[in-house]
Amino acid sequence: MGASPGTLVHVGEQKAETANITILDYSEAQFEEKQFTDAKDSFPFKDRPSVSWINLDGLHNVNLIEDLGQHFGIHSLVLEDCLDTTHRPKLDDYDSYLFVVLKMLYLNSDKSRIEDEQISLILGQNFVISLQEKAGDVFTSVRERIRAGKGRIRKAKADYLMYTLIDAVVDNYFVVVDELNEKIDQLDTEVIENPSPETLQNIYHLKRRVVEIRKSVSPLRDVISRLQKGDPELLDESTEIYFGDVFDHILQVIESIDADREILSGLIDLYLSSVSNRTNEVMKVLTIMATIFIPLTFIVGVYGMNFEYMPELKWHYAYPLVWLIMLIIAAFMLFFFRKRRWI
Amino acid sequence: MGASPGTLVHVGEQKAETANITILDYSEAQFEEKQFTDAKDSFPFKDRPSVSWINLDGLHNVNLIEDLGQHFGIHSLVLEDCLDTTHRPKLDDYDSYLFVVLKMLYLNSDKSRIEDEQISLILGQNFVISLQEKAGDVFTSVRERIRAGKGRIRKAKADYLMYTLIDAVVDNYFVVVDELNEKIDQLDTEVIENPSPETLQNIYHLKRRVVEIRKSVSPLRDVISRLQKGDPELLDESTEIYFGDVFDHILQVIESIDADREILSGLIDLYLSSVSNRTNEVMKVLTIMATIFIPLTFIVGVYGMNFEYMPELKWHYAYPLVWLIMLIIAAFMLFFFRKRRWI
Amino acid sequence: MGASPGTLVHVGEQKAETANITILDYSEAQFEEKQFTDAKDSFPFKDRPSVSWINLDGLHNVNLIEDLGQHFGIHSLVLEDCLDTTHRPKLDDYDSYLFVVLKMLYLNSDKSRIEDEQISLILGQNFVISLQEKAGDVFTSVRERIRAGKGRIRKAKADYLMYTLIDAVVDNYFVVVDELNEKIDQLDTEVIENPSPETLQNIYHLKRRVVEIRKSVSPLRDVISRLQKGDPELLDESTEIYFGDVFDHILQVIESIDADREILSGLIDLYLSSVSNRTNEVMKVLTIMATIFIPLTFIVGVYGMNFEYMPELKWHYAYPLVWLIMLIIAAFMLFFFRKRRWI
Amino acid sequence: MGASPGTLVHVGEQKAETANITILDYSEAQFEEKQFTDAKDSFPFKDRPSVSWINLDGLHNVNLIEDLGQHFGIHSLVLEDCLDTTHRPKLDDYDSYLFVVLKMLYLNSDKSRIEDEQISLILGQNFVISLQEKAGDVFTSVRERIRAGKGRIRKAKADYLMYTLIDAVVDNYFVVVDELNEKIDQLDTEVIENPSPETLQNIYHLKRRVVEIRKSVSPLRDVISRLQKGDPELLDESTEIYFGDVFDHILQVIESIDADREILSGLIDLYLSSVSNRTNEVMKVLTIMATIFIPLTFIVGVYGMNFEYMPELKWHYAYPLVWLIMLIIAAFMLFFFRKRRWI
Amino acid sequence: MGASPGTLVHVGEQKAETANITILDYSEAQFEEKQFTDAKDSFPFKDRPSVSWINLDGLHNVNLIEDLGQHFGIHSLVLEDCLDTTHRPKLDDYDSYLFVVLKMLYLNSDKSRIEDEQISLILGQNFVISLQEKAGDVFTSVRERIRAGKGRIRKAKADYLMYTLIDAVVDNYFVVVDELNEKIDQLDTEVIENPSPETLQNIYHLKRRVVEIRKSVSPLRDVISRLQKGDPELLDESTEIYFGDVFDHILQVIESIDADREILSGLIDLYLSSVSNRTNEVMKVLTIMATIFIPLTFIVGVYGMNFEYMPELKWHYAYPLVWLIMLIIAAFMLFFFRKRRWI
Repeated sequence: MGASPGTLVHVGEQKAETANITILDYSEAQFEEKQFTDAKDSFPFKDRPSVSWINLDGLHNVNLIEDLGQHFGIHSLVLEDCLDTTHRPKLDDYDSYLFVVLKMLYLNSDKSRIEDEQISLILGQNFVISLQEKAGDVFTSVRERIRAGKGRIRKAKADYLMYTLIDAVVDNYFVVVDELNEKIDQLDTEVIENPSPETLQNIYHLKRRVVEIRKSVSPLRDVISRLQKGDPELLDESTEIYFGDVFDHILQVIESIDADREILSGLIDLYLSSVSNRTNEVMKVLTIMATIFIPLTFIVGVYGMNFEYMPELKWHYAYPLVWLIMLIIAAFMLFFFRKRRWI
Repeated sequence: MGASPGTLVHVGEQKAETANITILDYSEAQFEEKQFTDAKDSFPFKDRPSVSWINLDGLHNVNLIEDLGQHFGIHSLVLEDCLDTTHRPKLDDYDSYLFVVLKMLYLNSDKSRIEDEQISLILGQNFVISLQEKAGDVFTSVRERIRAGKGRIRKAKADYLMYTLIDAVVDNYFVVVDELNEKIDQLDTEVIENPSPETLQNIYHLKRRVVEIRKSVSPLRDVISRLQKGDPELLDESTEIYFGDVFDHILQVIESIDADREILSGLIDLYLSSVSNRTNEVMKVLTIMATIFIPLTFIVGVYGMNFEYMPELKWHYAYPLVWLIMLIIAAFMLFFFRKRRWI
Repeated sequence: MGASPGTLVHVGEQKAETANITILDYSEAQFEEKQFTDAKDSFPFKDRPSVSWINLDGLHNVNLIEDLGQHFGIHSLVLEDCLDTTHRPKLDDYDSYLFVVLKMLYLNSDKSRIEDEQISLILGQNFVISLQEKAGDVFTSVRERIRAGKGRIRKAKADYLMYTLIDAVVDNYFVVVDELNEKIDQLDTEVIENPSPETLQNIYHLKRRVVEIRKSVSPLRDVISRLQKGDPELLDESTEIYFGDVFDHILQVIESIDADREILSGLIDLYLSSVSNRTNEVMKVLTIMATIFIPLTFIVGVYGMNFEYMPELKWHYAYPLVWLIMLIIAAFMLFFFRKRRWI
Repeated sequence: MGASPGTLVHVGEQKAETANITILDYSEAQFEEKQFTDAKDSFPFKDRPSVSWINLDGLHNVNLIEDLGQHFGIHSLVLEDCLDTTHRPKLDDYDSYLFVVLKMLYLNSDKSRIEDEQISLILGQNFVISLQEKAGDVFTSVRERIRAGKGRIRKAKADYLMYTLIDAVVDNYFVVVDELNEKIDQLDTEVIENPSPETLQNIYHLKRRVVEIRKSVSPLRDVISRLQKGDPELLDESTEIYFGDVFDHILQVIESIDADREILSGLIDLYLSSVSNRTNEVMKVLTIMATIFIPLTFIVGVYGMNFEYMPELKWHYAYPLVWLIMLIIAAFMLFFFRKRRWI
Repeated sequence: MGASPGTLVHVGEQKAETANITILDYSEAQFEEKQFTDAKDSFPFKDRPSVSWINLDGLHNVNLIEDLGQHFGIHSLVLEDCLDTTHRPKLDDYDSYLFVVLKMLYLNSDKSRIEDEQISLILGQNFVISLQEKAGDVFTSVRERIRAGKGRIRKAKADYLMYTLIDAVVDNYFVVVDELNEKIDQLDTEVIENPSPETLQNIYHLKRRVVEIRKSVSPLRDVISRLQKGDPELLDESTEIYFGDVFDHILQVIESIDADREILSGLIDLYLSSVSNRTNEVMKVLTIMATIFIPLTFIVGVYGMNFEYMPELKWHYAYPLVWLIMLIIAAFMLFFFRKRRWI
C-alpha cells in the first residue's frame, strides 16, 4: 500500500519455513531432478533446449524471487502479483512469456475444511516457473508421470506442462465440489429430521463458503477460455485442444457451484418452515389443553362461590351432574377439534 | 484424477452387464443390422460408402472402446469424455469428425422418477458412433424408421442420422417437462387444500430436481445453436434447417424449466402462508375462549373468597345476579369480536 | 413424438369443428372474398399478381394443410410447426417465403380469463397464409380495412399485410396487459383492506399467469427485431419502418409484464405482513386481558383458601380493601401498557 | 386499436383546454417569439434559415397536429406516436428528421406527488417541434436563455436546441430522485422508530412508483447513447460532446433508481422484523406473568379445597408458610428468567 | 439546474476553507515544489517540458478554476463536472487531454465511518491537474516517491503520474473493503451470540452503505478497462501494462463488494431466524408450565366446590390421593414432552 508499483512485498501469512526450489528438467530422452535454496543454481536451466519446471515453495524470501525474476526476464509487476496471495485468477500475456494466477483448493487432512492456496505460473519458451505458498500440492501425479516418462508429457513442450499443471488444479476442484454436495445432502437430512439453530448457522456458513469459492474459481473461466482460443502465441496449436478439455471442466465446476447456491437458499426456506412447524406442534398442544379446561375451570369456580342462596349446592345429584356436564363439554370440544383436523 | 490426460477410465456406475455393439448400416437401396461384442467386427464398416450407425451399450469395457476409437481415428480426449458420465453437454469439432455429448432424460418405468443417462455421439463422414451407459433408449422409433425405410432418413447422409438422434433426445425432454408441470399442479392443489410439512419438502426437492435438469439441458442450447449455424463443415446445408427445428425445441424446454423454477418459488411462499393461516385459525379459537373466560373466572374467584364480611354473599338474588353480569360480559365480548371480524 | 421429422400431426386440442379457408384477394383496383373447405380451390390464387390472404381456421384437417403446403411449396417442417400449437414464437427465413409463429392473446367473452391461440403466418411473394386454431380472431378490423379500401393496405404488397396482422396481434396484447394491471390494482386494494387466504392464492395464480404470458410474448421481441432490421429480403424497405413501430409496442408490453412480476412479488410481502398484523392485533387483546387478570385471579385465590388461621379473613374492611388493591393493580397495568403504546 | 397504422388518435386524458403553439425563432443576431392556435401560422418558419422552436401544448386537437405534420413532412407513424401518451421513450431516425419521445417527470405543486408527461421532439434541419400534453414544463430556463441570448444557445444550431431540451428534462430527474431518497430516509426512520401497517403500505407503494419511474427513464439510456455516438447524421459533431454529458446524467439517475429499489427491498425486511420485535416484547410480558402466577394459583387452589381431613389447614403458621413458599417460587422464576436474559 | 451547460457552479458542501494549488514539477534530473492561491502562478508550468502535477484542494473558488481551465484549454463541460461532486466516475477523451472522475474512499480518523470525496484528474501532454474537495488525501506516498526520486516515477511521463494517482485511490479501496469485511464478521458473531433489534438495523444500514459504495466504485471498471486497452492515444504503450494491474484490483474490489451484498442478505435471514428461535424458547417454557398446571388447577377447583353431597370430601385419604393423582398427571406430561423432545 503506497509503495511504488513493482515493489516486491509478500502479502499474506508466511506458510512455509524455508523457500525451496525444485527443478525437473526433461526431454523425451533425458530427465533430471534437483533441489536448491539459492536462485542462482537455477540460472543454467534457462537456456537449455529441454523443458524445465522450476517450482518454488514459500513466498517470503523476496530476494530469491527478485533474483529469479531478473534472470528470467520477468516484469516486476508480475513478481509483485506472485507475492500478493490475495490476487484474483488472471492471465497476462507478455509476448515472451505468459503469466497465470490461479487458486488451488483442497480439503485439509481430516477433510473438515477447504483450504485455498495461490499458484502463480510463468510459461516461457522452454520453461515453466510455478510459485506456491508452501510445500504440498496437487501436482504429485504430474511429477510421477514426468519421472516415469508415462504418456505424452515427456514428448511435449513447456506449454503442455503448463496445461498439465492447470488441469491438475482444476481436477481437484471436483473433489471440493463433491465435498460441498455431500455437506449439502447432510444438511438437507438434518433440516428435515432434526433441525436445530446450529443447522441454520451451518447452512449460512456453507453458503458463505460457496460464495468465496465462486470468487476463487469463476475468473478462471475467462483465463482458460483465452488459452483455449490460442490467443497467446506461445501456445502450440496441439495444446489448445487440451485447454478445451479444461474449459469444459471449469464450466462444469462453476455450474455446480451456482446450483449449490440456489439449493442452499432453498434449504434456508425449508429450515425456517421446519422450525416453525415444530413450534406450531407445541403450540397446538397448549391450545387444545387450554381451550378444553378453560370453561371447565370456570364451572368449578362457579360452584366454589360462597353465596348463601345457591340452590344447586343443595341438590343431591348436583355434583355428578356437574361432572356429566363437564364431560359433555370436553367431548364436544375434542369432537370439534378432530373435525377441524387440529388433532 | 491425477491420470495423464487421455487415459481411459470409466467414471460413473456400471449400468450394463455386457457391452454390446449394434450396427445399422444402410443406404437408400440396402439395409443391414448386426450385433457384436467385439470391436473388431465393426471395423469393416468404416470405409463402406453406406451410412453406418454404430451403437454401443455399456461403457465399462474400456478396451473395446479404445480399439474402436483407434480404428476410427478418434482423439483419446474424446474417448475419455465418452467414458466420464458426469460430463456436461458439449460439441467439439475435430474437423474430420464431430463430437457431441448430451443427456438423455426419461421417466422410469412407473413414472415416479426422472432418470438421466449420458449419450456421446461421434459423427464421421459416413458413420455415427453412439455410446450409451446401458441398453434401452429413446431411439426405438429411429431404428424403426431406418428398418422400414420410412421418410427421408434412408436417403440422407450420416449428419441427418445424427440430427435424428439428437431430435429424439430433445423430443423426450418434453415428456419430462410435462411430468414436472403435472407434479407442480399436484403440489399447487396440495398446498391450497391440505398442506403438510411433507408438501414443502416435496416442493423443495422438486425445485432441486429442476435445478439439476436445467444443468443437464441448458448447455445444449449452445451446442445446437452452433450446429444450426452450420459452423462445423461436416454438416450438409440441408441439415441445418432441421437443427433449426431442434433449436426451437430446446429453447422451449429451457423456457419451461425457467418458468417452473419461478413458479416453485412462488409455491413455497404460498405454502408458508397457508400453514401460517392454519395456525392462526387454531390460535384464534384459543384467544377467544381465553379472553371470554378470563374475566368470568376472576368474578367467580371473588365470590369464592372466605372473608367474614362480604355483604353480597348474603343477598338473596346475588347468585343469579352474578350469572346475569357474567352473561352480559360474555355477550359484550362476542359482540366486540364479531365487530372486529375476528369470528 | 418418435415420428419422422416433417410428419404432420396436430398437437393440441381440436378447437374448431370444420376447417374453413377464407381468401381475401385484392389489389388497389380489385377485391374478391371467398370461402372454401377444399384446399384445391385456393391453388389458382398462388400465381395471381394481386395480394392473396389465405386464412385457415382449424388445424385438425391435416390432409388439407398438407395439400396447401405442397402446392405453395412450403417445407414440411414449417407445416409441422403450424400444427404444433405449443410452439414458441419464432421467425424462419426460407428465402422464397417467411414463416412466423406467434401467440394471439385475448380476454374471453366475459373478460374473466385470458385465452391464447397460436397463429402461424407464411409470407410469400404475393400471398400471406395464416393458420389459426379456430374461427374468431383479432383481425376483424384488418378485414374491414381491406374490404373498404381504407388507408394504405390495398395499395401495399403482401409484406404490409403481414405487418398489419402482426400489428393487430400485438395491439391486442395491450388489452391483456391493461386487464392484468386492473387485476393487480384490485388485489392491491384487497390486500390492504380485507386480506383472506384466497387473496394470496389469487396473487400467486396471477403471477403464474404472468409468467406464462411472458413466455408467449417475450420471444416475439427477437422475431420483430429481425423483421425491423430488414434481415429477410422479402420485406420491402418501406415496411421496415412499420415493423419498427411494432417493435416499440412489443418492448412496451414486455416491460409492463416485467414490472407486473415485480409488483406482484411485492404484493405477496404486503399480504403476508397484512395478515400477520391482524393476528398480532388479536393476540394483543388476549395478552392484555390475560396479563391484567392473572395476578387478580391469584389474589382472589389466596383468600379462597381454607386455613383456619388467616387473620385477614376476619378484618372488617378486608373485602373492600382487596377490591381496592386489585383496582390499583389493574390501573397500574393499563397505565404501563399505554405508556409502552401497546393499547 | 384496430385502426389503420398512421391513423391519428389521441390516447390518454386531455390535460389542456386549448392547444397552443408557441414559436421561438432565433439566430445569433435576431429573436422573435409568437403564439398561435392555428397550425398554418407556423408554416412560414419552416424555410427560414434561423432556428425555430415550435412548441405545442395540448394533444387533443388532432387536426392541428395533422396539418403541422403534413407541412413539415413528418411521417404519419411519428404523429401517431406523438399522440399516444403511453409510449415508451425512443429515438427514430428518419434521415431528414429525428424523432425522440421522452417522459418529463416533476413534482406537483405541493411536492406530494410525482407527475409524468410525455414530450415528443422532432428535430429537422433548422427547427425543433416539441409536443407536450399541457402547458407548464421544465423548459422555462431554456426560454429565458434564448430570450436573453445568454451562453452558446443563440449561436448554435437546432441540434443544440434539442440537446438543451433533453438536458432540461434529464436534469429534472435529479429533483425526482432526490425526492425519492428523502422519502426513503423518512420511511427508514419511521420503520425504526414507529412502524405501523401504513408504513409498509407506503414502502410498497413507493417501490411500485420506483418501478414505474424506471420504466419511464431506463429506455432513455439507449436513446441518448445513440445520440452521443453521433449515429444520426443530423447531429453536428460539436453537439455530441454535450450528449455525452447528458448520457452521464441519465446513467447516474438509473443507478440511483436501481439502488433505491434494492434499499426499499431491504426496508421491507427491516419493517417486518421491527414489527415482529414489538409483538415479541408484548408476548414476553404475558409469558413471564403467566409463568410466574400459574404455579402460585395452583397452590392457592390446593388450599381452597374442601376436604375434611387436610391437616395443613389446621396448622397455625400454615398461611404465612404458604406465602413464603410462593414468594420463593416467584423469586426463583424471576432469577431463572433473568439468567436466561429474558427480562 | 436550469443553467446553461458549461456554467460553473459548485455542487456539494464546501469542505475546505481556502482553495490551495500545489505544484510538483519534475523530470528525471530536476524537482520543484510550490504552493499558490492564485491560478496565474501555475500558468508558466503549462509549456515546460518537465512533468507538472497541479493539485487543487477546495472547489468553492469557481473563478480560480475557470482561470485555470481557460489557460490550460479545458472544455467548460469538464470544469462543470469537476465542480459537481455528485458525479459518477467516468473517462472522457478530448484528444488533447483526458478527463477522469473517480471517488476516493477512506476511513475517517477514528475508523468509524467511510467517507468519500470526488477526485477529478485531467491529463495533458506534460501535466496532470487533480481537483479535490479538500486537503488530505491518499496521495502522500506518491508525493514522497516523487520527492525522493524513488522507483520509475521521475523517469516516466505524465500518463504514468496519472496511473500512480488512480492506483493510489484504488489501493485504498482495499482498506475500505477490509473494514467492511471486518464489520460483517462482527455482525455475524453478534447475530449468532446476542442478536438485538439494533443488530438488524446495523446489518441493513451496512448493506445500504455497500450499495452506495458499489455505485461509487463499479463505473470505474469501464473507465480503467478503456485506459488498459490504450484507447486514448495520450497514453504511452508502456503505461497500459500498469493500468492492466489496476484493472485487476478494481475487479477484485467489485467482486468483494458483490460477495458482501450476498453475505449480508444471508445474514438478515440468519438474524430473523435467530430472533425467532429465542422467542420460541420463551414460548416453550410458558407452554410447558401452562400445559402441566391447567389440568391440576382444574382438579383442585373441583374439590373447592361447595356442594353438600360430595362423598370424596369426607374420605379420610382423599387429600393425599388427590395429590398422588396430580403428581401422576404431571409426571406423565413431563414424560410426554420429553418423548417429543420438547424439553
